[in-house]
Amino acid sequence: MSSNPIDIKKVHIQDSFWTTKQELIRKEVIPYQWEVLNDRIPEAAPSYCMHNFRAAALLHEKKQSLGKAFVPPKYSYRGFNVLPDDPRAPKDDEFYGFVFQDSDFSKWIEAVGYSLATHPDPELEKTADEAIDLVCRAQTEDGYLDTYYIINGMDKVFTNLRDHHELYCLGHLVEGAIAYYQGTGKEKLLRAAMRFADYVAERFGTEEGKIHGYPGHEIAEMALLRLSEVTGEEKYAKLAEYFIDQRGRAPLYFDQEHPTPKGEEYKVDYYHQAHIPVRDQDEAVGHAVRAVYLYSGMADLARRSGDEKLFAACRALWKSTVSEKMYITGGIGATHLGEAFSFPFDLPNDTDYSETCASIGLVFFARRMLQIEAKREYADVMELALFNGILSGIALDGKSFFYVNPLEVIPKACHLDERKMHIKPVRQKWFGCACCPPNLARLVASIGTYAFTEKEDTLFVHLYMGSELEKNGRKIQIESGLPESGNVSIRVSSGNAPEPLTLALRIPSWCEDHYQIEGVNVSSEDVRDGYLYVNVPDEETTISLSFELKPKFVSVDARVNEDLGKVALVRGPIVYCAEEADNGDGLGSLYIDPRAEIKEEKISISGANAIALDVEGYRILPNEQGAEFISPLYRTWQGEKEEKKTVRLIPYRLWANRGEGEMRVYLSRR
Amino acid sequence: MSSNPIDIKKVHIQDSFWTTKQELIRKEVIPYQWEVLNDRIPEAAPSYCMHNFRAAALLHEKKQSLGKAFVPPKYSYRGFNVLPDDPRAPKDDEFYGFVFQDSDFSKWIEAVGYSLATHPDPELEKTADEAIDLVCRAQTEDGYLDTYYIINGMDKVFTNLRDHHELYCLGHLVEGAIAYYQGTGKEKLLRAAMRFADYVAERFGTEEGKIHGYPGHEIAEMALLRLSEVTGEEKYAKLAEYFIDQRGRAPLYFDQEHPTPKGEEYKVDYYHQAHIPVRDQDEAVGHAVRAVYLYSGMADLARRSGDEKLFAACRALWKSTVSEKMYITGGIGATHLGEAFSFPFDLPNDTDYSETCASIGLVFFARRMLQIEAKREYADVMELALFNGILSGIALDGKSFFYVNPLEVIPKACHLDERKMHIKPVRQKWFGCACCPPNLARLVASIGTYAFTEKEDTLFVHLYMGSELEKNGRKIQIESGLPESGNVSIRVSSGNAPEPLTLALRIPSWCEDHYQIEGVNVSSEDVRDGYLYVNVPDEETTISLSFELKPKFVSVDARVNEDLGKVALVRGPIVYCAEEADNGDGLGSLYIDPRAEIKEEKISISGANAIALDVEGYRILPNEQGAEFISPLYRTWQGEKEEKKTVRLIPYRLWANRGEGEMRVYLSRR
Repeated sequence: MSSNPIDIKKVHIQDSFWTTKQELIRKEVIPYQWEVLNDRIPEAAPSYCMHNFRAAALLHEKKQSLGKAFVPPKYSYRGFNVLPDDPRAPKDDEFYGFVFQDSDFSKWIEAVGYSLATHPDPELEKTADEAIDLVCRAQTEDGYLDTYYIINGMDKVFTNLRDHHELYCLGHLVEGAIAYYQGTGKEKLLRAAMRFADYVAERFGTEEGKIHGYPGHEIAEMALLRLSEVTGEEKYAKLAEYFIDQRGRAPLYFDQEHPTPKGEEYKVDYYHQAHIPVRDQDEAVGHAVRAVYLYSGMADLARRSGDEKLFAACRALWKSTVSEKMYITGGIGATHLGEAFSFPFDLPNDTDYSETCASIGLVFFARRMLQIEAKREYADVMELALFNGILSGIALDGKSFFYVNPLEVIPKACHLDERKMHIKPVRQKWFGCACCPPNLARLVASIGTYAFTEKEDTLFVHLYMGSELEKNGRKIQIESGLPESGNVSIRVSSGNAPEPLTLALRIPSWCEDHYQIEGVNVSSEDVRDGYLYVNVPDEETTISLSFELKPKFVSVDARVNEDLGKVALVRGPIVYCAEEADNGDGLGSLYIDPRAEIKEEKISISGANAIALDVEGYRILPNEQGAEFISPLYRTWQGEKEEKKTVRLIPYRLWANRGEGEMRVYLSRR
Repeated sequence: MSSNPIDIKKVHIQDSFWTTKQELIRKEVIPYQWEVLNDRIPEAAPSYCMHNFRAAALLHEKKQSLGKAFVPPKYSYRGFNVLPDDPRAPKDDEFYGFVFQDSDFSKWIEAVGYSLATHPDPELEKTADEAIDLVCRAQTEDGYLDTYYIINGMDKVFTNLRDHHELYCLGHLVEGAIAYYQGTGKEKLLRAAMRFADYVAERFGTEEGKIHGYPGHEIAEMALLRLSEVTGEEKYAKLAEYFIDQRGRAPLYFDQEHPTPKGEEYKVDYYHQAHIPVRDQDEAVGHAVRAVYLYSGMADLARRSGDEKLFAACRALWKSTVSEKMYITGGIGATHLGEAFSFPFDLPNDTDYSETCASIGLVFFARRMLQIEAKREYADVMELALFNGILSGIALDGKSFFYVNPLEVIPKACHLDERKMHIKPVRQKWFGCACCPPNLARLVASIGTYAFTEKEDTLFVHLYMGSELEKNGRKIQIESGLPESGNVSIRVSSGNAPEPLTLALRIPSWCEDHYQIEGVNVSSEDVRDGYLYVNVPDEETTISLSFELKPKFVSVDARVNEDLGKVALVRGPIVYCAEEADNGDGLGSLYIDPRAEIKEEKISISGANAIALDVEGYRILPNEQGAEFISPLYRTWQGEKEEKKTVRLIPYRLWANRGEGEMRVYLSRR
């Protein structure tokens, strides 16, 4: 039997690490984002998101007041990113921004919903209610809700599924509406989302006369399955199932929708994971965010339906992702061309994409796989991505963000080399295409629903974090020293027999099964798939866990060319990097000795405490020995001069909080 | 006093290495290219080059027959690469192909001219004469000769200097016409080229009413200076001088010609070396071929005018190119984006461009610098580029070509990674944009004019190759063992006193001044700037030179990140590489020991003899030790397993003659 996430209202995070992050979201990101949505941040590119909802609402009111005299706009294509002549004076009745701009509101309201679930805030709730009122005013009478087409002309609705993100906007609206409903109990936005989903359900399907397409950018799949769970309405699950089943079936829908240049079909459909039916897919391909959103929906459907073939595809895609295409930081998407997966073992460090959103999507996928089968490999990856490639996406002050999370940066190259211009050496204030900051917000605000899942008698603890929750009438208090220490304590209040309670406690793979447990009697047979199953006695019980957390060097599969002869340094789930701020520039000329002792040092970066690691190494000095060979660039090799050098490494998530400089995860080794 | 190239008719190459190459050009490339120009090679993209000349000629004839009733075509832009609906049935009166397609003929006729200079071939000469007749028929009455505008409408002539290559076509026409004149004594094409140059001279200049622009793609500069030398007409030198002086002066011409997006101006002008006046330029930037063509023209002008400031700029640009931006193969242009120079010390091995034509242009530049000052640094680079990054451009059978000459290739990456798709793991038959094969043809066919220059009493021997030539009435016979051995013998027939003869013999820097000379008395004071100046006695004299030619490892400046911890192997001017054909795949997992002995082995690849080098090393084996870290990709480092391995390296120019496989110039070292 599969497990479900804990009700967000029933889990309270009280953790020195995670509470800080949640407060950043609550106090910095959510308010800032609201200002952005309303174009009130002079230094950020205008979003036009709320403007568009207002324009759509005005159009409906005009229609109502004019009655039959109203002439609806005829659609004409105005470009993918439509911008006004004067960016600060948009016209009242025009749409601006990306075609998917509506989703900015949905992502915001989702983070707001999760935040309100555990941190009531009447003022924020009032702002949100007003925003929802406006959004609902923008919806058409028959339930359609995408302001791009409402404003630009409804006659072309659903004619460009590949590029125009209407179903992506539906998916985000559903996710946002559910979160707000769960956080506040208010149904207005949920009803609007259901009406839009009803509208889509009417229009799409295999039946004649219906549209046989599916989303160009996936997310509606998992959103609709969740909507079905929340509302109990089967039809939403059916719609999600249709989207998943139909995808990649011949004749390929996107090729029919868009006459595709001969020979390009595969490439285009590959990008959209629509090249073959999903059950036949076994390699993670194309746009990385789209891919893991799809896989998340597939896992949800497999869990619901028990479809073994679909689950086998999920497993194959998981394996392809994490064992051939995942950076050690939990980053995925090795190429910025198409923000996409590259071929297996192609993991360049200085030109990768590793979009924050893609790692977030990987967490979505992992949690869903965990729900089906509690195997620690999923939770290990979830934890890895969270502590590294995701949290690197947000500055310690919550005010700037990385879209791309590279493993090696030389700022000069980012500024001068067009091939690396997608890599920013410092976090950016906000993005025109603002997916990563709101995605971070909704994930961090709901982190408790990833840490824990439950089924009837069992609470699964996938991630250890200070928290309070309830299960089977028993209060569970967790304290965790992670990521600094591996000590965890779990206090369970006394219960009312005979209601049993099992705790399924993940033994992280990084401790290599070196851990101690006190307070309960367990044997090695209680460990299955990396989870320790503890039957908690009825009396109040305190379980103390201690996972060995020591730094170690990691080498990479020899098929990853870029990392041959190099090592990374990790400590528990934390991946380390060397920064110019500690080591000077020219990090490429550093060699470390992986046989030498690693020293731990407590440090603080911009107020964040962490453990730095110091290792012995060498710096190769500029070679001025040997005769020049043709040019001063080249010299006869006579051995390089080198000097001893202690190299300091800090947790990867903390990089670029001390100005612009070089950074490297992998260092050459002796 | 500066020196001049030897008259091509007076130098006969009889060299086991170079004669083979010249025969490839004569027997394979020139005939094949003629078929391509006439669209008679089914498997190659049609060129339409001769078609266009024919279409232009027909238009003139139509004009003549219709008289006043003739309506000239009105120009309308039809795209940069205009192609017919049916590629094998182009319409008689339309232009097809790239806007610079005329230059394909000019490059062909240039190679033909050089070839005929030393290898008379009546049949080839007849074909060439007929081609010239057609080309001359295409010229307008007033001398203009670019079929793109003649056919598409003369009203827009010279309105898109930045992109439309009219002055590039002029430059190539002039170069081709001079070569044919020098090779055959026939003036017809030279007269046509002069008329086109006269037309341009009328239209361009700083005077009011004239066009203040200059070439988007340089070459006319050096071509016009040469035309002036050949014809004795000052005006062509003046025109070249105008182009060079005007370039990069404010207000920037290209920005005025094309409204350039704000902030993009610099980038666009930088690409064209038109960002600042040429005398202020000290960094090699932009499109690499354009750059070295410009620098060649600048050097020609500096030599002619004695302009010290201009020569200082040439020196600075030379230095920037060879000491910060040149690959060890003599390749330049580190990025395929704009086929351009990257920033200093940015020399990636697996994504570079290193276009064959750019290295050829570097040879042009080097020879011109040598003419001004006989310093071996120029000849060293010329030799390096020739033996490595240029000759790698042509297959041993002369039937396929590399445009891009990378230093590291993994075929899979070229096929699957869009960032590397410009890199081909095997040579291609021919290119739509056919610059490299004809450029190779004209260089190799005229190699004697690079090996030697002369001034009154001195013959400069820049490159050693088997040859016969005359100087001051004395016959000089050279035998050379290069590149296999460093033995050179120079026999000079007896002379008629008192006409003195000095031989300026380059001491290649790769011998690190270890050489022996016999047959004449010289002292160390006779060596200046790497040239040994020998006053040849009046009697018949044989000079024996023996340059030390031993393999050695070379390391790269530590600022070149990609090559840290790696070495290349060279032997004399020959750069080596490891190929999969000898070493299996996974070349990245090989480590060599630069302290170990290097063994020489005679080999033959596709009939070409060469010396292979065998070095001791290791292969790192797939790491299956250590616990997995999160994913099978990552393992706790416990030292890698390795096996001993003798690594074989072959001359770089010979790579990819044994099918598709990995290749690497730089190998990791212990």
